[in-house]
Amino acid sequence: MIIRALEVLDLRFPTSRTHAGTDAVHVDPDYSAAYVVLKTDAGLEGHGLTFTIGRGNEVCVAAIEAFRHLVVGQRLQDITADFGAFWRRLASDSQLRWLGPEKGVIHLALAAVVNAIWDLYAKAERKPVWKLLADMTPRQLVSCIDFRYMTDALTPDEAIDILERQAGTKADRERELRRSGFPAYTTSVGWMGYSDEAVRSLCREAIANGWTHFKVKVGGRLEDDCRRVALVREEIGPDRTLMIDANQQWDVATAIERGRELARFRPWWM
Amino acid sequence: MIIRALEVLDLRFPTSRTHAGTDAVHVDPDYSAAYVVLKTDAGLEGHGLTFTIGRGNEVCVAAIEAFRHLVVGQRLQDITADFGAFWRRLASDSQLRWLGPEKGVIHLALAAVVNAIWDLYAKAERKPVWKLLADMTPRQLVSCIDFRYMTDALTPDEAIDILERQAGTKADRERELRRSGFPAYTTSVGWMGYSDEAVRSLCREAIANGWTHFKVKVGGRLEDDCRRVALVREEIGPDRTLMIDANQQWDVATAIERGRELARFRPWWM
Repeated sequence: MIIRALEVLDLRFPTSRTHAGTDAVHVDPDYSAAYVVLKTDAGLEGHGLTFTIGRGNEVCVAAIEAFRHLVVGQRLQDITADFGAFWRRLASDSQLRWLGPEKGVIHLALAAVVNAIWDLYAKAERKPVWKLLADMTPRQLVSCIDFRYMTDALTPDEAIDILERQAGTKADRERELRRSGFPAYTTSVGWMGYSDEAVRSLCREAIANGWTHFKVKVGGRLEDDCRRVALVREEIGPDRTLMIDANQQWDVATAIERGRELARFRPWWM
Repeated sequence: MIIRALEVLDLRFPTSRTHAGTDAVHVDPDYSAAYVVLKTDAGLEGHGLTFTIGRGNEVCVAAIEAFRHLVVGQRLQDITADFGAFWRRLASDSQLRWLGPEKGVIHLALAAVVNAIWDLYAKAERKPVWKLLADMTPRQLVSCIDFRYMTDALTPDEAIDILERQAGTKADRERELRRSGFPAYTTSVGWMGYSDEAVRSLCREAIANGWTHFKVKVGGRLEDDCRRVALVREEIGPDRTLMIDANQQWDVATAIERGRELARFRPWWM
Protein backbone atom coordinates (compact mmCIF):
# COMPACT_ATOMS: atom_id res chain seq x y z
CA MET A 1 0.00 0.00 0.00
CA ILE A 2 1.52 3.30 -1.12
CA ILE A 3 0.63 6.77 0.17
CA ARG A 4 -0.30 8.75 -2.93
CA ALA A 5 -1.44 12.09 -1.50
CA LEU A 6 -1.42 14.17 1.67
CA GLU A 7 -4.28 16.64 2.01
CA VAL A 8 -4.70 19.16 4.83
CA LEU A 9 -7.94 20.84 5.90
CA ASP A 10 -8.10 24.03 8.01
CA LEU A 11 -11.12 23.30 10.24
CA ARG A 12 -12.43 25.88 12.70
CA PHE A 13 -15.42 25.94 15.03
CA PRO A 14 -16.63 29.19 16.67
CA THR A 15 -16.68 27.71 20.19
CA SER A 16 -15.75 31.05 21.77
CA ARG A 17 -19.41 32.08 21.28
CA THR A 18 -20.44 29.68 24.06
CA HIS A 19 -17.32 30.21 26.26
CA ALA A 20 -16.63 26.47 26.00
CA GLY A 21 -12.95 25.73 26.56
CA THR A 22 -12.21 29.05 28.27
CA ASP A 23 -9.60 29.30 31.03
CA ALA A 24 -7.52 32.02 32.69
CA VAL A 25 -5.26 32.61 29.68
CA HIS A 26 -7.23 31.15 26.76
CA VAL A 27 -10.19 33.47 27.09
CA ASP A 28 -11.80 32.99 23.66
CA PRO A 29 -10.76 29.65 22.12
CA ASP A 30 -12.23 28.63 18.76
CA TYR A 31 -11.59 24.88 18.76
CA SER A 32 -9.84 24.09 15.51
CA ALA A 33 -7.81 21.43 13.77
CA ALA A 34 -5.21 21.11 11.06
CA TYR A 35 -6.68 17.88 9.69
CA VAL A 36 -4.59 15.49 7.58
CA VAL A 37 -5.95 12.95 5.11
CA LEU A 38 -3.47 10.47 3.60
CA LYS A 39 -4.77 8.79 0.44
CA THR A 40 -3.44 5.43 -0.72
CA ASP A 41 -3.49 3.35 -3.86
CA ALA A 42 -5.51 0.74 -1.92
CA GLY A 43 -8.43 3.11 -1.33
CA LEU A 44 -7.82 3.26 2.45
CA GLU A 45 -7.35 6.70 4.02
CA GLY A 46 -5.37 7.64 7.11
CA HIS A 47 -6.77 10.56 9.13
CA GLY A 48 -4.92 12.56 11.77
CA LEU A 49 -5.21 16.00 13.29
CA THR A 50 -3.50 18.51 15.48
CA PHE A 51 -5.61 20.68 17.76
CA THR A 52 -5.36 24.46 17.97
CA ILE A 53 -7.65 27.14 19.38
CA GLY A 54 -8.10 29.26 16.26
CA ARG A 55 -5.70 31.90 14.99
CA GLY A 56 -2.52 30.20 13.78
CA ASN A 57 -4.27 27.02 12.65
CA GLU A 58 -3.08 28.01 9.16
CA VAL A 59 0.53 27.98 10.45
CA CYS A 60 0.10 24.31 11.44
CA VAL A 61 -1.38 23.62 8.00
CA ALA A 62 1.73 25.17 6.38
CA ALA A 63 3.99 23.07 8.63
CA ILE A 64 2.16 19.85 7.76
CA GLU A 65 2.55 20.66 4.07
CA ALA A 66 6.30 21.05 4.66
CA PHE A 67 6.42 17.34 5.58
CA ARG A 68 4.67 16.19 2.39
CA HIS A 69 7.90 15.22 0.55
CA LEU A 70 8.76 12.79 3.37
CA VAL A 71 5.38 11.04 3.30
CA VAL A 72 3.93 10.92 -0.22
CA GLY A 73 5.33 8.02 -2.24
CA GLN A 74 6.14 5.98 0.88
CA ARG A 75 5.01 2.38 1.27
CA LEU A 76 3.01 1.83 4.49
CA GLN A 77 4.82 -1.42 5.27
CA ASP A 78 8.24 0.26 4.96
CA ILE A 79 7.13 2.86 7.51
CA THR A 80 5.61 0.40 9.98
CA ALA A 81 8.54 -2.03 9.69
CA ASP A 82 10.66 0.65 11.43
CA PHE A 83 8.34 3.31 12.81
CA GLY A 84 11.06 4.80 15.00
CA ALA A 85 13.18 5.51 11.92
CA PHE A 86 10.18 7.16 10.20
CA TRP A 87 9.70 9.52 13.16
CA ARG A 88 13.39 10.33 13.06
CA ARG A 89 13.35 11.06 9.31
CA LEU A 90 10.56 13.59 9.87
CA ALA A 91 11.72 15.10 13.20
CA SER A 92 15.34 15.26 12.03
CA ASP A 93 14.83 16.51 8.46
CA SER A 94 18.10 18.38 8.02
CA GLN A 95 16.43 21.73 7.24
CA LEU A 96 13.01 21.55 8.95
CA ARG A 97 14.56 20.52 12.27
CA TRP A 98 15.83 24.09 12.64
CA LEU A 99 12.21 25.17 13.34
CA GLY A 100 11.69 22.57 16.03
CA PRO A 101 12.67 19.85 16.40
CA GLU A 102 9.93 18.38 18.53
CA LYS A 103 8.60 21.67 19.86
CA GLY A 104 5.86 24.16 18.99
CA VAL A 105 4.30 24.24 15.53
CA ILE A 106 6.64 21.61 14.07
CA HIS A 107 5.82 19.18 16.86
CA LEU A 108 2.08 19.79 16.43
CA ALA A 109 2.38 19.23 12.66
CA LEU A 110 4.44 16.08 13.10
CA ALA A 111 1.81 14.71 15.49
CA ALA A 112 -0.95 15.18 12.89
CA VAL A 113 1.06 13.39 10.20
CA VAL A 114 2.19 10.52 12.42
CA ASN A 115 -1.31 10.07 13.87
CA ALA A 116 -2.64 9.77 10.30
CA ILE A 117 -0.09 6.98 9.67
CA TRP A 118 -1.23 5.20 12.86
CA ASP A 119 -4.84 5.48 11.71
CA LEU A 120 -3.92 4.02 8.32
CA TYR A 121 -1.85 1.26 9.92
CA ALA A 122 -4.70 0.26 12.26
CA LYS A 123 -7.23 0.26 9.43
CA ALA A 124 -4.90 -1.92 7.33
CA GLU A 125 -4.64 -4.33 10.28
CA ARG A 126 -8.43 -4.08 10.90
CA LYS A 127 -7.98 -3.13 14.55
CA PRO A 128 -8.46 0.00 16.64
CA VAL A 129 -5.12 1.71 17.40
CA TRP A 130 -5.19 0.72 21.08
CA LYS A 131 -5.56 -2.94 20.13
CA LEU A 132 -2.85 -2.71 17.47
CA LEU A 133 -0.49 -1.39 20.15
CA ALA A 134 -1.64 -3.85 22.82
CA ASP A 135 -1.03 -6.81 20.50
CA MET A 136 2.58 -5.84 19.78
CA THR A 137 5.44 -7.72 21.41
CA PRO A 138 7.68 -5.59 23.66
CA ARG A 139 10.27 -5.50 20.88
CA GLN A 140 7.76 -4.34 18.23
CA LEU A 141 6.34 -1.65 20.50
CA VAL A 142 9.78 -0.29 21.40
CA SER A 143 10.80 -0.25 17.72
CA CYS A 144 8.05 2.36 17.10
CA ILE A 145 9.97 4.90 19.20
CA ASP A 146 12.89 7.06 18.08
CA PHE A 147 15.17 6.90 21.13
CA ARG A 148 17.29 9.86 20.00
CA TYR A 149 17.89 12.08 23.09
CA MET A 150 15.88 9.57 25.19
CA THR A 151 18.83 7.21 25.69
CA ASP A 152 20.19 9.59 28.35
CA ALA A 153 17.24 8.47 30.50
CA LEU A 154 16.14 5.12 29.02
CA THR A 155 17.64 2.77 26.43
CA PRO A 156 15.59 0.52 24.10
CA ASP A 157 16.82 -2.56 25.99
CA GLU A 158 15.70 -1.12 29.31
CA ALA A 159 12.29 -0.31 27.80
CA ILE A 160 11.92 -3.86 26.44
CA ASP A 161 12.87 -5.20 29.85
CA ILE A 162 10.13 -3.14 31.58
CA LEU A 163 7.51 -4.39 29.12
CA GLU A 164 8.67 -8.01 29.37
CA ARG A 165 8.46 -7.91 33.17
CA GLN A 166 4.79 -6.80 32.87
CA ALA A 167 3.87 -9.20 30.04
CA GLY A 168 2.41 -11.84 32.35
CA THR A 169 -0.44 -9.59 33.51
CA LYS A 170 -1.15 -7.91 30.15
CA ALA A 171 -4.17 -10.09 29.35
CA ASP A 172 -5.71 -9.26 32.76
CA ARG A 173 -5.33 -5.55 32.08
CA GLU A 174 -6.97 -5.87 28.68
CA ARG A 175 -9.91 -7.74 30.23
CA GLU A 176 -10.24 -5.05 32.91
CA LEU A 177 -10.17 -2.34 30.25
CA ARG A 178 -12.89 -4.05 28.22
CA ARG A 179 -15.00 -4.62 31.35
CA SER A 180 -14.81 -1.22 33.05
CA GLY A 181 -13.28 1.18 30.52
CA PHE A 182 -10.38 3.57 30.96
CA PRO A 183 -10.49 6.13 33.82
CA ALA A 184 -11.08 9.75 32.80
CA TYR A 185 -12.05 13.04 34.39
CA THR A 186 -14.35 15.77 33.09
CA THR A 187 -13.21 19.34 32.65
CA SER A 188 -16.36 20.41 30.82
CA VAL A 189 -18.27 21.44 33.95
CA GLY A 190 -15.97 24.27 34.99
CA TRP A 191 -14.81 26.40 32.05
CA MET A 192 -13.76 29.86 33.16
CA GLY A 193 -16.36 31.76 31.14
CA TYR A 194 -19.38 29.76 32.37
CA SER A 195 -21.91 31.31 34.76
CA ASP A 196 -22.31 29.83 38.24
CA GLU A 197 -25.71 28.49 37.21
CA ALA A 198 -24.22 26.74 34.18
CA VAL A 199 -21.47 25.16 36.30
CA ARG A 200 -24.04 23.91 38.83
CA SER A 201 -26.29 22.33 36.23
CA LEU A 202 -23.33 20.79 34.35
CA CYS A 203 -22.06 19.25 37.59
CA ARG A 204 -25.46 17.65 38.20
CA GLU A 205 -25.59 16.36 34.64
CA ALA A 206 -22.06 14.92 34.89
CA ILE A 207 -22.85 13.19 38.21
CA ALA A 208 -25.98 11.70 36.62
CA ASN A 209 -23.75 10.41 33.79
CA GLY A 210 -21.46 8.66 36.27
CA TRP A 211 -18.48 11.03 36.45
CA THR A 212 -16.50 10.89 39.70
CA HIS A 213 -13.58 13.31 38.95
CA PHE A 214 -14.10 17.01 38.11
CA LYS A 215 -11.65 19.72 37.04
CA VAL A 216 -12.26 23.46 37.58
CA LYS A 217 -10.46 26.38 35.91
CA VAL A 218 -9.04 29.08 38.17
CA GLY A 219 -6.59 31.98 37.75
CA GLY A 220 -8.99 34.93 37.95
CA ARG A 221 -9.66 37.16 40.97
CA LEU A 222 -9.18 35.29 44.26
CA GLU A 223 -12.82 35.75 45.34
CA ASP A 224 -14.08 34.46 41.96
CA ASP A 225 -11.76 31.43 42.09
CA CYS A 226 -12.92 30.60 45.62
CA ARG A 227 -16.59 31.02 44.77
CA ARG A 228 -16.40 28.79 41.69
CA VAL A 229 -14.34 26.06 43.37
CA ALA A 230 -16.67 26.16 46.41
CA LEU A 231 -19.77 25.67 44.34
CA VAL A 232 -18.29 22.71 42.45
CA ARG A 233 -17.27 21.11 45.77
CA GLU A 234 -20.80 21.74 47.04
CA GLU A 235 -22.36 20.14 43.97
CA ILE A 236 -20.12 17.06 43.82
CA GLY A 237 -20.14 16.47 47.59
CA PRO A 238 -17.25 15.47 49.86
CA ASP A 239 -16.47 12.07 48.29
CA ARG A 240 -16.01 12.83 44.59
CA THR A 241 -12.65 14.16 43.41
CA LEU A 242 -11.93 17.82 42.61
CA MET A 243 -8.96 19.14 40.60
CA ILE A 244 -7.86 22.72 39.87
CA ASP A 245 -6.12 24.16 36.79
CA ALA A 246 -4.69 27.71 36.55
CA ASN A 247 -3.32 27.22 33.00
CA GLN A 248 0.07 28.93 33.50
CA GLN A 249 -1.52 32.12 34.80
CA TRP A 250 0.53 32.24 38.02
CA ASP A 251 4.20 32.51 38.90
CA VAL A 252 5.50 30.39 41.79
CA ALA A 253 4.82 32.97 44.53
CA THR A 254 1.21 33.46 43.39
CA ALA A 255 0.67 29.71 43.03
CA ILE A 256 1.76 29.15 46.64
CA GLU A 257 -0.46 31.99 47.91
CA ARG A 258 -3.51 30.84 45.93
CA GLY A 259 -2.80 27.21 46.79
CA ARG A 260 -3.06 28.05 50.49
CA GLU A 261 -6.43 29.77 49.93
CA LEU A 262 -7.88 27.01 47.76
CA ALA A 263 -6.62 24.12 49.91
CA ARG A 264 -9.77 24.28 52.04
CA PHE A 265 -11.79 22.88 49.11
CA ARG A 266 -9.59 19.76 49.23
CA PRO A 267 -8.40 19.60 45.63
CA TRP A 268 -6.68 16.32 44.68
CA TRP A 269 -4.12 18.39 42.78
CA MET A 270 -3.71 21.88 41.40
CA MET B 1 4.46 57.57 13.82
CA ILE B 2 1.96 54.82 12.96
CA ILE B 3 2.79 51.39 11.50
CA ARG B 4 0.70 51.15 8.35
CA ALA B 5 1.81 47.83 6.83
CA LEU B 6 3.69 44.63 7.65
CA GLU B 7 5.30 42.89 4.66
CA VAL B 8 7.14 39.55 4.80
CA LEU B 9 9.69 38.28 2.26
CA ASP B 10 10.69 34.61 1.92
CA LEU B 11 14.43 34.93 1.18
CA ARG B 12 16.57 31.87 0.43
CA PHE B 13 20.20 31.43 -0.57
CA PRO B 14 21.52 28.10 -1.96
CA THR B 15 24.44 27.92 0.47
CA SER B 16 24.34 24.13 0.57
CA ARG B 17 26.12 24.16 -2.81
CA THR B 18 29.33 25.30 -1.06
CA HIS B 19 28.81 23.27 2.18
CA ALA B 20 28.94 26.55 4.13
CA GLY B 21 27.14 26.22 7.43
CA THR B 22 27.22 22.41 7.49
CA ASP B 23 27.49 20.49 10.74
CA ALA B 24 26.82 16.96 12.00
CA VAL B 25 23.04 17.27 11.81
CA HIS B 26 22.45 20.19 9.44
CA VAL B 27 24.15 18.62 6.44
CA ASP B 28 22.76 20.81 3.65
CA PRO B 29 21.64 24.20 5.01
CA ASP B 30 20.33 26.83 2.62
CA TYR B 31 20.67 29.99 4.68
CA SER B 32 17.30 31.72 4.57
CA ALA B 33 15.27 34.39 6.26
CA ALA B 34 11.66 35.30 6.88
CA TYR B 35 12.26 39.02 6.46
CA VAL B 36 9.85 41.61 7.87
CA VAL B 37 9.42 45.17 6.65
CA LEU B 38 7.21 47.49 8.72
CA LYS B 39 6.06 50.59 6.82
CA THR B 40 5.03 53.77 8.61
CA ASP B 41 3.19 56.96 7.78
CA ALA B 42 6.45 58.84 8.44
CA GLY B 43 8.30 57.10 5.58
CA LEU B 44 10.64 55.25 7.96
CA GLU B 45 10.80 51.44 7.68
CA GLY B 46 11.60 48.90 10.39
CA HIS B 47 13.40 45.75 9.19
CA GLY B 48 13.74 42.48 11.10
CA LEU B 49 14.34 38.85 10.23
CA THR B 50 14.33 35.37 11.58
CA PHE B 51 16.93 32.92 10.33
CA THR B 52 16.17 29.43 9.02
CA ILE B 53 18.12 26.93 6.94
CA GLY B 54 15.71 26.49 4.04
CA ARG B 55 12.67 24.21 4.03
CA GLY B 56 10.07 25.56 6.44
CA ASN B 57 11.01 29.21 5.91
CA GLU B 58 7.47 29.57 4.52
CA VAL B 59 6.10 28.31 7.87
CA CYS B 60 7.85 31.22 9.63
CA VAL B 61 6.42 33.59 7.01
CA ALA B 62 2.92 32.27 7.79
CA ALA B 63 3.53 32.70 11.53
CA ILE B 64 4.72 36.30 11.09
CA GLU B 65 1.59 37.07 9.09
CA ALA B 66 -0.47 35.70 11.98
CA PHE B 67 0.87 38.57 14.15
CA ARG B 68 -0.12 41.29 11.66
CA HIS B 69 -3.35 42.27 13.45
CA LEU B 70 -1.35 43.05 16.61
CA VAL B 71 1.16 45.32 14.83
CA VAL B 72 -0.47 47.20 11.97
CA GLY B 73 -2.25 50.34 13.15
CA GLN B 74 -0.09 50.66 16.27
CA ARG B 75 1.66 53.91 17.17
CA LEU B 76 5.44 53.42 17.63
CA GLN B 77 5.51 55.58 20.75
CA ASP B 78 2.74 53.54 22.37
CA ILE B 79 4.80 50.39 21.81
CA THR B 80 8.09 51.81 23.05
CA ALA B 81 6.47 53.48 26.06
CA ASP B 82 5.82 49.96 27.40
CA PHE B 83 7.81 47.51 25.30
CA GLY B 84 7.35 44.69 27.83
CA ALA B 85 3.58 44.96 27.46
CA PHE B 86 3.92 44.84 23.65
CA TRP B 87 5.92 41.58 23.87
CA ARG B 88 3.28 40.16 26.19
CA ARG B 89 0.41 41.12 23.86
CA LEU B 90 2.12 39.21 21.03
CA ALA B 91 3.51 36.25 23.01
CA SER B 92 0.28 35.84 24.98
CA ASP B 93 -2.28 36.37 22.20
CA SER B 94 -5.10 34.25 23.57
CA GLN B 95 -5.27 31.95 20.50
CA LEU B 96 -1.75 32.08 18.98
CA ARG B 97 -0.10 31.27 22.31
CA TRP B 98 -1.39 27.70 21.92
CA LEU B 99 1.23 27.20 19.17
CA GLY B 100 4.09 28.42 21.32
CA PRO B 101 4.30 30.49 23.37
CA GLU B 102 7.94 31.44 23.14
CA LYS B 103 9.09 28.26 21.45
CA GLY B 104 9.73 26.98 17.92
CA VAL B 105 8.16 28.69 14.91
CA ILE B 106 6.10 31.15 16.98
CA HIS B 107 9.19 32.28 18.89
CA LEU B 108 11.17 32.71 15.64
CA ALA B 109 8.32 34.72 14.11
CA LEU B 110 7.94 36.89 17.20
CA ALA B 111 11.68 37.65 17.09
CA ALA B 112 11.46 38.89 13.50
CA VAL B 113 8.54 41.20 14.31
CA VAL B 114 10.04 42.56 17.52
CA ASN B 115 13.45 43.06 15.91
CA ALA B 116 11.75 45.11 13.18
CA ILE B 117 10.21 47.31 15.89
CA TRP B 118 13.65 47.78 17.51
CA ASP B 119 15.08 48.74 14.11
CA LEU B 120 12.30 51.28 13.61
CA TYR B 121 12.70 52.63 17.16
CA ALA B 122 16.46 53.09 16.71
CA LYS B 123 16.01 54.81 13.35
CA ALA B 124 13.41 57.13 14.88
CA GLU B 125 15.90 57.96 17.66
CA ARG B 126 18.75 58.26 15.09
CA LYS B 127 20.95 55.76 16.96
CA PRO B 128 22.17 52.22 16.38
CA VAL B 129 20.21 49.71 18.51
CA TRP B 130 23.16 49.05 20.84
CA LYS B 131 23.45 52.75 21.62
CA LEU B 132 19.70 53.12 22.09
CA LEU B 133 19.89 50.33 24.71
CA ALA B 134 23.09 51.61 26.31
CA ASP B 135 21.59 55.09 26.79
CA MET B 136 18.52 53.79 28.63
CA THR B 137 18.22 54.18 32.39
CA PRO B 138 18.00 50.90 34.34
CA ARG B 139 14.25 51.47 34.73
CA GLN B 140 13.73 52.09 30.98
CA LEU B 141 15.75 49.02 30.02
CA VAL B 142 13.91 46.74 32.44
CA SER B 143 10.54 48.07 31.21
CA CYS B 144 11.34 46.58 27.76
CA ILE B 145 11.12 43.05 29.21
CA ASP B 146 7.96 41.03 29.85
CA PHE B 147 8.76 39.40 33.20
CA ARG B 148 5.96 36.84 32.90
CA TYR B 149 7.40 33.48 34.05
CA MET B 150 10.75 35.20 34.76
CA THR B 151 9.67 36.46 38.18
CA ASP B 152 10.26 32.96 39.58
CA ALA B 153 13.98 33.65 39.05
CA LEU B 154 14.28 37.45 38.85
CA THR B 155 11.88 40.32 39.58
CA PRO B 156 11.94 43.70 37.78
CA ASP B 157 13.16 45.38 40.99
CA GLU B 158 16.05 42.92 41.32
CA ALA B 159 16.99 43.54 37.67
CA ILE B 160 16.95 47.32 38.18
CA ASP B 161 19.11 46.86 41.26
CA ILE B 162 21.73 44.87 39.30
CA LEU B 163 21.89 47.56 36.61
CA GLU B 164 22.05 50.40 39.12
CA ARG B 165 24.95 48.75 40.94
CA GLN B 166 26.89 48.65 37.63
CA ALA B 167 25.90 52.14 36.46
CA GLY B 168 29.08 53.79 37.73
CA THR B 169 31.33 51.89 35.28
CA LYS B 170 28.99 51.98 32.27
CA ALA B 171 30.82 54.87 30.56
CA ASP B 172 34.13 52.97 30.89
CA ARG B 173 32.62 49.91 29.23
CA GLU B 174 31.26 51.98 26.36
CA ARG B 175 34.69 53.56 25.80
CA GLU B 176 36.32 50.11 25.84
CA LEU B 177 33.75 48.84 23.33
CA ARG B 178 34.37 51.75 20.99
CA ARG B 179 38.15 51.33 21.31
CA SER B 180 38.58 47.57 20.91
CA GLY B 181 35.24 46.23 19.70
CA PHE B 182 33.18 43.38 21.06
CA PRO B 183 34.80 39.93 21.44
CA ALA B 184 33.71 37.27 18.94
CA TYR B 185 34.83 33.89 17.66
CA THR B 186 34.82 32.53 14.12
CA THR B 187 33.04 29.33 13.19
CA SER B 188 33.54 29.82 9.45
CA VAL B 189 36.85 27.97 9.28
CA GLY B 190 35.56 24.56 10.31
CA TRP B 191 32.21 23.69 8.70
CA MET B 192 31.65 19.95 8.58
CA GLY B 193 31.48 19.64 4.79
CA TYR B 194 34.74 21.51 4.09
CA SER B 195 37.83 19.67 2.86
CA ASP B 196 40.94 19.58 5.04
CA GLU B 197 42.67 21.90 2.57
CA ALA B 198 39.81 24.42 2.77
CA VAL B 199 39.90 24.34 6.59
CA ARG B 200 43.68 24.93 6.60
CA SER B 201 43.56 27.87 4.25
CA LEU B 202 40.55 29.41 6.06
CA CYS B 203 42.43 29.15 9.38
CA ARG B 204 45.40 31.02 7.91
CA GLU B 205 43.12 33.68 6.46
CA ALA B 206 41.29 34.12 9.79
CA ILE B 207 44.58 34.41 11.71
CA ALA B 208 45.75 37.05 9.22
CA ASN B 209 42.49 38.92 9.90
CA GLY B 210 43.19 38.93 13.64
CA TRP B 211 40.89 36.15 14.90
CA THR B 212 42.02 34.48 18.12
CA HIS B 213 39.09 32.08 18.84
CA PHE B 214 38.08 29.26 16.46
CA LYS B 215 35.16 26.82 16.52
CA VAL B 216 35.20 23.42 14.78
CA LYS B 217 32.23 21.18 13.96
CA VAL B 218 32.42 17.54 15.06
CA GLY B 219 29.94 14.67 15.38
CA GLY B 220 31.07 12.46 12.48
CA ARG B 221 33.23 9.34 12.66
CA LEU B 222 35.72 9.50 15.54
CA GLU B 223 38.78 9.39 13.26
CA ASP B 224 37.39 12.21 11.08
CA ASP B 225 36.58 14.35 14.13
CA CYS B 226 40.11 13.83 15.52
CA ARG B 227 41.79 14.57 12.20
CA ARG B 228 39.85 17.80 11.66
CA VAL B 229 40.30 19.09 15.20
CA ALA B 230 44.01 18.20 15.08
CA LEU B 231 44.61 20.15 11.90
CA VAL B 232 42.85 23.25 13.26
CA ARG B 233 44.94 23.06 16.44
CA GLU B 234 48.04 22.69 14.28
CA GLU B 235 47.12 25.73 12.16
CA ILE B 236 46.17 28.05 15.04
CA GLY B 237 49.06 26.99 17.29
CA PRO B 238 49.03 26.29 21.03
CA ASP B 239 48.06 29.80 22.22
CA ARG B 240 44.91 30.61 20.27
CA THR B 241 41.59 29.25 21.55
CA LEU B 242 39.82 26.21 20.09
CA MET B 243 36.16 25.28 20.64
CA ILE B 244 34.20 22.21 19.54
CA ASP B 245 30.51 21.88 18.56
CA ALA B 246 28.71 18.56 17.96
CA ASN B 247 25.32 20.21 17.30
CA GLN B 248 23.14 17.80 19.33
CA GLN B 249 24.48 14.75 17.49
CA TRP B 250 25.50 12.87 20.65
CA ASP B 251 23.71 11.49 23.68
CA VAL B 252 25.41 11.88 27.08
CA ALA B 253 27.33 8.58 26.94
CA THR B 254 28.74 9.37 23.48
CA ALA B 255 29.58 12.94 24.48
CA ILE B 256 31.65 11.68 27.44
CA GLU B 257 33.43 9.09 25.27
CA ARG B 258 34.19 11.58 22.48
CA GLY B 259 35.10 14.27 24.99
CA ARG B 260 37.80 12.01 26.41
CA GLU B 261 39.24 11.41 22.92
CA LEU B 262 39.13 15.07 21.88
CA ALA B 263 40.47 16.46 25.16
CA ARG B 264 44.06 16.07 23.94
CA PHE B 265 43.51 18.95 21.49
CA ARG B 266 42.80 21.19 24.50
CA PRO B 267 39.40 22.64 23.53
CA TRP B 268 38.25 25.57 25.68
CA TRP B 269 34.79 24.03 25.66
CA MET B 270 32.78 21.45 23.75
